[in-house]
Amino acid sequence: MMQNVEKIALVGAGLVGSLMAIYLAKRGYKVDLYERRRDMRKGSADAGRSINLALSNRGLRPLKEVGLNEAAKKMVIPMQGRMMHDHKGSLTFQPYGRLGQAINSISRGGLNELLMNEAEKLGVKIHFDHLCTGIDFEKNLLSFDVNGKEIEQSADIIIGSDGAFSVVRGFMQRTDRFNFSQYYIEHGYKELSIPPAPNNGFKIDKNALHIWPRGNYMLIALPNLDGSFTVTLFFPFNGQPSFDTLQTRDDVEQFFKEVFPDAYELMPTLADDFQTNPTSSLVTVKSYPWVKNKTLIIGDASHAIVPFYGQGMNSGFEDCRILNALLDQHQDNWDVVLQKFNETRKPDVDAISDLALQNFIEMRDLVADEDFLLRKKIEARLHELYPEKWTPLYSMVTFNEDIRYSEALNIGRRQKEIMDEVMRSPDIENTWEELDFKNIVEKLEV
Amino acid sequence: MMQNVEKIALVGAGLVGSLMAIYLAKRGYKVDLYERRRDMRKGSADAGRSINLALSNRGLRPLKEVGLNEAAKKMVIPMQGRMMHDHKGSLTFQPYGRLGQAINSISRGGLNELLMNEAEKLGVKIHFDHLCTGIDFEKNLLSFDVNGKEIEQSADIIIGSDGAFSVVRGFMQRTDRFNFSQYYIEHGYKELSIPPAPNNGFKIDKNALHIWPRGNYMLIALPNLDGSFTVTLFFPFNGQPSFDTLQTRDDVEQFFKEVFPDAYELMPTLADDFQTNPTSSLVTVKSYPWVKNKTLIIGDASHAIVPFYGQGMNSGFEDCRILNALLDQHQDNWDVVLQKFNETRKPDVDAISDLALQNFIEMRDLVADEDFLLRKKIEARLHELYPEKWTPLYSMVTFNEDIRYSEALNIGRRQKEIMDEVMRSPDIENTWEELDFKNIVEKLEV
Repeated sequence: MMQNVEKIALVGAGLVGSLMAIYLAKRGYKVDLYERRRDMRKGSADAGRSINLALSNRGLRPLKEVGLNEAAKKMVIPMQGRMMHDHKGSLTFQPYGRLGQAINSISRGGLNELLMNEAEKLGVKIHFDHLCTGIDFEKNLLSFDVNGKEIEQSADIIIGSDGAFSVVRGFMQRTDRFNFSQYYIEHGYKELSIPPAPNNGFKIDKNALHIWPRGNYMLIALPNLDGSFTVTLFFPFNGQPSFDTLQTRDDVEQFFKEVFPDAYELMPTLADDFQTNPTSSLVTVKSYPWVKNKTLIIGDASHAIVPFYGQGMNSGFEDCRILNALLDQHQDNWDVVLQKFNETRKPDVDAISDLALQNFIEMRDLVADEDFLLRKKIEARLHELYPEKWTPLYSMVTFNEDIRYSEALNIGRRQKEIMDEVMRSPDIENTWEELDFKNIVEKLEV
Repeated sequence: MMQNVEKIALVGAGLVGSLMAIYLAKRGYKVDLYERRRDMRKGSADAGRSINLALSNRGLRPLKEVGLNEAAKKMVIPMQGRMMHDHKGSLTFQPYGRLGQAINSISRGGLNELLMNEAEKLGVKIHFDHLCTGIDFEKNLLSFDVNGKEIEQSADIIIGSDGAFSVVRGFMQRTDRFNFSQYYIEHGYKELSIPPAPNNGFKIDKNALHIWPRGNYMLIALPNLDGSFTVTLFFPFNGQPSFDTLQTRDDVEQFFKEVFPDAYELMPTLADDFQTNPTSSLVTVKSYPWVKNKTLIIGDASHAIVPFYGQGMNSGFEDCRILNALLDQHQDNWDVVLQKFNETRKPDVDAISDLALQNFIEMRDLVADEDFLLRKKIEARLHELYPEKWTPLYSMVTFNEDIRYSEALNIGRRQKEIMDEVMRSPDIENTWEELDFKNIVEKLEV
């Protein structure tokens, strides 16, 4: 039997670490949250990570559980669908789900501050400038470098929430039989900007996630509260065209003018931004097991994913919710909870990891494809007619937080098989409205 | 254009590092070989790594190229096939290839000493007790801890040949866009022993690799020159039965007596060996790219594989041969050679990595399966009738060093499809000799 757990140390005060600290403080634990950076609330730019994120149901539910739902909602701009921009700047809108369903653009920094403030209010002690330099998994000891001084801290439970390049995971990796992979895609990203219209107005529709799909690459834009849009170019590192071929200001201006003409008009600081802002890489990290004695890793530390399903933060927040639910269910018996979390959560994060990689192809290429758009139309109709029986994959992942990721992936695969068959019907473009929708939905039930 | 290369540093003086050092010294480079261990030739046990290995054609060819073929041949015991031991101790022999084809049991330590001696003879300086603690990939600098003292060394080219847990690869992993995975299988292994018969005789057939296949696990034995056999148990860590369930001396004795009765009779020190020798894990490591500026990783450092195809050392030796051939081909233009090696060799080591995992199932389970044995018989006949047109996969990998691993994998897949079809012929067990073998072989040519 495990000894009494009183003191919990979290490494990494990002979004997931701060939310987990709140949950644990509310359960009555003494929580220390260690962060290698300085306090972001005292002003600092955080290079290399995205400025805004899409918060959806799986992220909202835990915020609701800890009572931060309303505060968070004041910080978001709902995006009801994708706004596609073609080569000529013509627009097409694709709703994400049913009326009232939306994903929410939110500032990473703003949300992180909200969570840290709440954590401190609940008695969590946040230790900034603490770089983790070692973990003794047997003795449950953490070492930190604090401004050049080495200190040691102990805890009954240690949780690593220190992101895709987790130091805690790094130490686990040195122990025997720890499975681990990191795979980079061929694309990187660079953040750019569309400034606000006069009086904090928005230069393009603010209630949409804007996409300029261009086959092998794409540009996207998410709105910010001040009227600006954060624009992100997802682009190959090498090849033609690529970051490699856009070397001079002229290269950049030429390329954008030609390929994203309507966006180009809205980006007066394009060439400067392009040269100043870093080009960042995109990695998928998998690891297992996530538990080593009394140390656990959560969020990006155990399962970093690419951003194309908008589920990185959302899945990390869901980790926190599920860990908390297991603590409820097992009366805070951490031995049991750590093992259950490890075993039951793994297939779900593997599922969203794969879905996120697949969705890049959908976003950058298929969203402008006739066949794909027709599939979406038919699936939307199926959902409209049988809302309880046929929910499109995107909606299951984004709006149905009661469906596990792994379940969504499986149902989605079955739906795809059925839709592949439907799409082979003769003259489907013109006859789809006459399909036997009842029969299609019933296939899913077998 | 790359500056002149004169000085090459290798990290890791194991089998692959020592052979590579020989190749490079023969080309006229000044070669330093750094090794974290003490000099094994001065006596030291090397726990946690297998005692003997199966040297086959891909390993013999480079030894021949550097003139060590004859010396190595004096150290080997040829094994012409598998000797299967069933539950009752009954024996079945399956030849590996045609008459005269064999894999060769050789002592890891003995071969390593041969290679180190030859390297030194050619002017290679081996620096023992040098633990690599850092690499500056830009400045081409290596740091070492030498008995507690930190020293720095530079080189024009750095090659990491420091094994599955490579320190050089570890430093590469910290740089951006380095793909990496390490996956452990559910099985571990433990080395045991059958002592020699009187006067260095052999208690079982010395010219075979002995296997006790038992479905989910197996025991194997390879002969040593002194008449003993090194016995290895490949066994799950957990479950029933597993290392976890064999805790006491009695558990071990009981289990072996029941499951490997004929081996049990030959192992007087079984219970002692079992408790003294470590239980080791089995990992597959993949990484890419293998080149960072002027540093390259080879052998297990870039692609550690499980031992079930007997190709770990052989593929590492082949790395050396191919790197040397590229240096020939490109007049020692290292810029070109490093990139070519990186790109062309990767699909081959991925192929043998997958084949090695698959072969575990074959060894521990299928070798005792009727359907499998019939397939082998039909394939042997095909090879006998059409030796140029149909070579079984095992032979391509083991005896045909001119066929790339990736090519062997592809041909093997096609052969499997054809054989799946052949095996569906009615009453195949009794009619196989009447098959239209010419027709079968021709299917492979399309």
